[in-house]
Amino acid sequence: MRAAILNGPGDVNVETVPDPGLADSTSVVVEVSHTAICGSDLHLYHGLHGSPGIHLGHEFVGRVVAVGDDVRTLTLDDRVLVSAVIGCGRCAQCLGRNPVRCTSGPRVFGNGLDLPGGQAELVAVPAADTSCRLLPHPVTPEQAVMLTDILPTGYYGARNADIRPGDTVAVLGLGPVGIFALQSAQVMGAARVLAVDTVPERLAHAERLGAIPVDATDGAGTVAAILDHTAGRGADSVIEAVGIDQTISDALYATRAGGTVSVIGANLGMEFAFPMGLAFLRDLTFRIGLCPVQSTWDELIPLVATGRLAPEQVVTHRMALSDATEAYRLFEAREDGVLKVLLDPTR
Amino acid sequence: MRAAILNGPGDVNVETVPDPGLADSTSVVVEVSHTAICGSDLHLYHGLHGSPGIHLGHEFVGRVVAVGDDVRTLTLDDRVLVSAVIGCGRCAQCLGRNPVRCTSGPRVFGNGLDLPGGQAELVAVPAADTSCRLLPHPVTPEQAVMLTDILPTGYYGARNADIRPGDTVAVLGLGPVGIFALQSAQVMGAARVLAVDTVPERLAHAERLGAIPVDATDGAGTVAAILDHTAGRGADSVIEAVGIDQTISDALYATRAGGTVSVIGANLGMEFAFPMGLAFLRDLTFRIGLCPVQSTWDELIPLVATGRLAPEQVVTHRMALSDATEAYRLFEAREDGVLKVLLDPTR
Amino acid sequence: MRAAILNGPGDVNVETVPDPGLADSTSVVVEVSHTAICGSDLHLYHGLHGSPGIHLGHEFVGRVVAVGDDVRTLTLDDRVLVSAVIGCGRCAQCLGRNPVRCTSGPRVFGNGLDLPGGQAELVAVPAADTSCRLLPHPVTPEQAVMLTDILPTGYYGARNADIRPGDTVAVLGLGPVGIFALQSAQVMGAARVLAVDTVPERLAHAERLGAIPVDATDGAGTVAAILDHTAGRGADSVIEAVGIDQTISDALYATRAGGTVSVIGANLGMEFAFPMGLAFLRDLTFRIGLCPVQSTWDELIPLVATGRLAPEQVVTHRMALSDATEAYRLFEAREDGVLKVLLDPTR
Amino acid sequence: MRAAILNGPGDVNVETVPDPGLADSTSVVVEVSHTAICGSDLHLYHGLHGSPGIHLGHEFVGRVVAVGDDVRTLTLDDRVLVSAVIGCGRCAQCLGRNPVRCTSGPRVFGNGLDLPGGQAELVAVPAADTSCRLLPHPVTPEQAVMLTDILPTGYYGARNADIRPGDTVAVLGLGPVGIFALQSAQVMGAARVLAVDTVPERLAHAERLGAIPVDATDGAGTVAAILDHTAGRGADSVIEAVGIDQTISDALYATRAGGTVSVIGANLGMEFAFPMGLAFLRDLTFRIGLCPVQSTWDELIPLVATGRLAPEQVVTHRMALSDATEAYRLFEAREDGVLKVLLDPTR
Repeated sequence: MRAAILNGPGDVNVETVPDPGLADSTSVVVEVSHTAICGSDLHLYHGLHGSPGIHLGHEFVGRVVAVGDDVRTLTLDDRVLVSAVIGCGRCAQCLGRNPVRCTSGPRVFGNGLDLPGGQAELVAVPAADTSCRLLPHPVTPEQAVMLTDILPTGYYGARNADIRPGDTVAVLGLGPVGIFALQSAQVMGAARVLAVDTVPERLAHAERLGAIPVDATDGAGTVAAILDHTAGRGADSVIEAVGIDQTISDALYATRAGGTVSVIGANLGMEFAFPMGLAFLRDLTFRIGLCPVQSTWDELIPLVATGRLAPEQVVTHRMALSDATEAYRLFEAREDGVLKVLLDPTR
Repeated sequence: MRAAILNGPGDVNVETVPDPGLADSTSVVVEVSHTAICGSDLHLYHGLHGSPGIHLGHEFVGRVVAVGDDVRTLTLDDRVLVSAVIGCGRCAQCLGRNPVRCTSGPRVFGNGLDLPGGQAELVAVPAADTSCRLLPHPVTPEQAVMLTDILPTGYYGARNADIRPGDTVAVLGLGPVGIFALQSAQVMGAARVLAVDTVPERLAHAERLGAIPVDATDGAGTVAAILDHTAGRGADSVIEAVGIDQTISDALYATRAGGTVSVIGANLGMEFAFPMGLAFLRDLTFRIGLCPVQSTWDELIPLVATGRLAPEQVVTHRMALSDATEAYRLFEAREDGVLKVLLDPTR
Repeated sequence: MRAAILNGPGDVNVETVPDPGLADSTSVVVEVSHTAICGSDLHLYHGLHGSPGIHLGHEFVGRVVAVGDDVRTLTLDDRVLVSAVIGCGRCAQCLGRNPVRCTSGPRVFGNGLDLPGGQAELVAVPAADTSCRLLPHPVTPEQAVMLTDILPTGYYGARNADIRPGDTVAVLGLGPVGIFALQSAQVMGAARVLAVDTVPERLAHAERLGAIPVDATDGAGTVAAILDHTAGRGADSVIEAVGIDQTISDALYATRAGGTVSVIGANLGMEFAFPMGLAFLRDLTFRIGLCPVQSTWDELIPLVATGRLAPEQVVTHRMALSDATEAYRLFEAREDGVLKVLLDPTR
Repeated sequence: MRAAILNGPGDVNVETVPDPGLADSTSVVVEVSHTAICGSDLHLYHGLHGSPGIHLGHEFVGRVVAVGDDVRTLTLDDRVLVSAVIGCGRCAQCLGRNPVRCTSGPRVFGNGLDLPGGQAELVAVPAADTSCRLLPHPVTPEQAVMLTDILPTGYYGARNADIRPGDTVAVLGLGPVGIFALQSAQVMGAARVLAVDTVPERLAHAERLGAIPVDATDGAGTVAAILDHTAGRGADSVIEAVGIDQTISDALYATRAGGTVSVIGANLGMEFAFPMGLAFLRDLTFRIGLCPVQSTWDELIPLVATGRLAPEQVVTHRMALSDATEAYRLFEAREDGVLKVLLDPTR
């Protein structure tokens, strides 16, 4: 089969590799119909971690073409979506749909560790009963791809932010995940979302969705702008969707006393300079975590199915898997108004 | 001053009565600028309880024209909205904004018991610090009238319904309170609202708001229709906004196992035939209660101020206080597409 | 094998019946080591429902002696406890440990419907992965029997009662389930538990556990006594553990404004005279439900394992299965200070 | 009057100073009957912040001897307890009993900023209606002193730790606040409390209270010990009651995936090296905050009044105010098994 392979920083090619088989009796093999490039793929692309020969991609949906003997809930030809994050499938946390709290630890597709990724014609999916969900009517495959990682992640950011109806919520970073956090905050009843970024197109996008755009490059910066919009009090909740130290710090300084900071931007640093005195005097709650994708599906699938959320709207580019090299280049360069790129493995 | 007075079933007249004064040092006198007729006023109008000479009206906003010595938060000429339900203003529950749980018990304006009502030029408001709120910019007086009772009541019905994002919520009864329950369920993240009534205009109104209209007169009735829309499972939550035994019963039978029934229709009966066996096997939560209006303001005011809720849209008729007799007749007869009537005490 | 069989009102005998086999590939067969008689068995014993030939018993633990091909988590010779209530084992609710909300509906062992009971040498247990739990070290078999139904039920009553630290909680009915509700309320931080019954030994038992005994036969009755202990305000929460209309009514009248009534006494009536007006003016929450046993294990097992709860202390009688006729007679007659009877199927 | 005054590091003397008067119409003057030295007084004693001439003390109870005109809830001769932390008394947060979220910011007695302290014969208490509570029967004055700061702080640490019944909770630091956190965790249903310290007497004290003592100086240290007690998984919640960087770091590393770290040790540093990558992969919640004392009283007062908590048991020394110099010396030196020192201002 063909798969997008990363061999070094900036070096992605579509190569022919052996077809995957069933890893064990709880696995299925999925023939991928739609897959996407994620902002976190760029961490690998930039060479931040992992070794050469990485099978990229953790966002994918498709058709079941092989089924292990112990799989109970799936059969051949089922159309499924697959969580980017999976667990052992047997522990109480996995059965309760939280692979991040799996007693064996979470695994992520296509991150260069142990699971080959989904920007490929075929993928082996372990622990299929807890890793997959049947494509629910009338959710489309493009919507379903958004449900494998980034819509859940944005939603989880909002869930972790303790939003109550009437609240003012700030979202820092308006990439696709930030946009989904923004929309999730609206679903949870936020009266106002302050949407912070520096890119005019992203700010305009947020404004079209009903948020108040805040250009972080104006005036005294993000914190001052949020305080200004809240009579000096700070936002009730701040969702950080960038993942760099500066924006996490901004989030802490822009939150009201008693409020919550929720970080969904991946940050693997081990020495963030946390302002403990500020947090103590302001009585803050701080949450950060990898999203347990499966735990969000019961809430998100109906929201997508009924049209309250239309996550496919972030897709700006649809390309062939065979064009993966160009797709990565364009996505990394942020050219052509790119927000989200889908790849078609049949081409 | 002039006030709308109920002297017997169906007998409302505008009469000249003595001006009210400050009852005690914690009171204010409010010159009413906008007041409304509520569905619950019809209980009095129909002669269900109370004695002749009732000063009607519990929904009103206006301007402070006299201030007791112990009032801390208001001064002359302040524009205020007033909760329909008030308490002693001194107990922990009142300070925590819950007059319904006041240790001295709740009081309601214009219900024929002790507090003269607000369909009048002037009203004395006890315990003003906890009963009033300054009219918050940019909320309009018409919006503010909706915040004195019926928007909070609809919202409280939704808050009591344990709604989670993605849920299917049924609302029984699409008068103004039911409409507000519907919109509140949407604010709290309902994926679908099944809006049940028998009046075509009300069903059409609900549909325009994004709900799924369910005509209770079609087919086998409300319960069957809700089960049909939920694959036989029942709604996650049912909000009852009528207050009669039949619809409360329907609510119980139309809720899924583990779901919640929230009743906001006033029902003062003491022998409702509760299906205990059904509730036991279905593991149900049942809530009913008078709305603690003040407890909803911190959430609702920002939602109105930012335009997420536009409660003034239920107003169909604006009339002079001097036309109160006709206003009550028309409202009781449900003529002319009436949904909500405002009265102007300056006319 | 031998099993306790009910052939008519008050007619229990130990009979030799065919050994059960594996019903399907998800089942196990358990050789029962300890089983108990439950208060709800008396409903059958009194002839309230079910037809002759009922295999009694829903509280049992034992050893796995046969395993279906699709059982993942159990093997031969495992010591297990089994939930009295089970579901299909495949739906999301079952996987999330809530058999009461199973999309196929809950099933109960030994209730005369479809599942033969556990007062027997052997029992077939369907959906074993979600119905059973390995006997956790250092929980003893006698403690484990309490974890199959009545400790979870008492605990569920407290969980449903919205108890906060410092609350005053009333428990109506001090049988074993009521005693466990009392202790669970203490675990959840109740400052005071008012323990109501009419039997002196039960009241004394509650007092030894730290509760305030309230003799319902004294003075003006239960409601007056609870109001008297709470300065006329009512208890924050009332847990009803009897199941008759009178005590459910008492619970509603003895709860403070804004409080919660939690019913765990089984009541299958369909026309309880619910005081809707009272509940409306008091803003009450009312919950009633069959206990989803499995959902309580993660919380209860550590509490038993560390000795914070010692549920085996309610056991007053240990008898042979062969004495089941006498055991039922004595239990029904409430002779000899009986509170809980264990049966030993090896004798 | 006499008051304990700090003039420099380690330099505490009892001096005669002018009597305080009513600062404004919302104040009272309290004649102190019992006051205590707090661990946080040592921060001042060690010269960490503040300027010379500090009137020390934020834990005190006494009798009202002067009342401002606008005080509603107190009269002359009332016995009161006073919160160590107060707010403006007028904003919604203050009325809702949260001075830490006061829109004007919180104020603390005796910290060298603006409010003279309570280790004195008399204290002026602003915003008395929200700062004081009548001494509730049958709580003793010594118990009440514990309710002004350190019992609420320990309890708040537990409330912030998301404890569910059955949880394993670790408490780092077994001074009086840590001991109260330990007991609060038990009140909230913890099955096990792992109590970590290095002082044998403190570990023995915790063991007597039912906790599992963990000597942080044994073996590989705190984190290893907690992992060892939890099969490598980490504690469900960790409460940090020391306030230094090392123990906050330990708390983060000793918490299970999905768990909560709650910090109540005051830490005013602004550059704690937070392990963001660890928290991201473990999906952690982190809370730190000054305790809103008043928000805990409705829960704690009944727990003390009924004897579930006996906070006076931490008092090891009762001395005269005139011995304040020696009291501070002894407390700072941790001599004579000192845990908590009460001062009597009448002597």
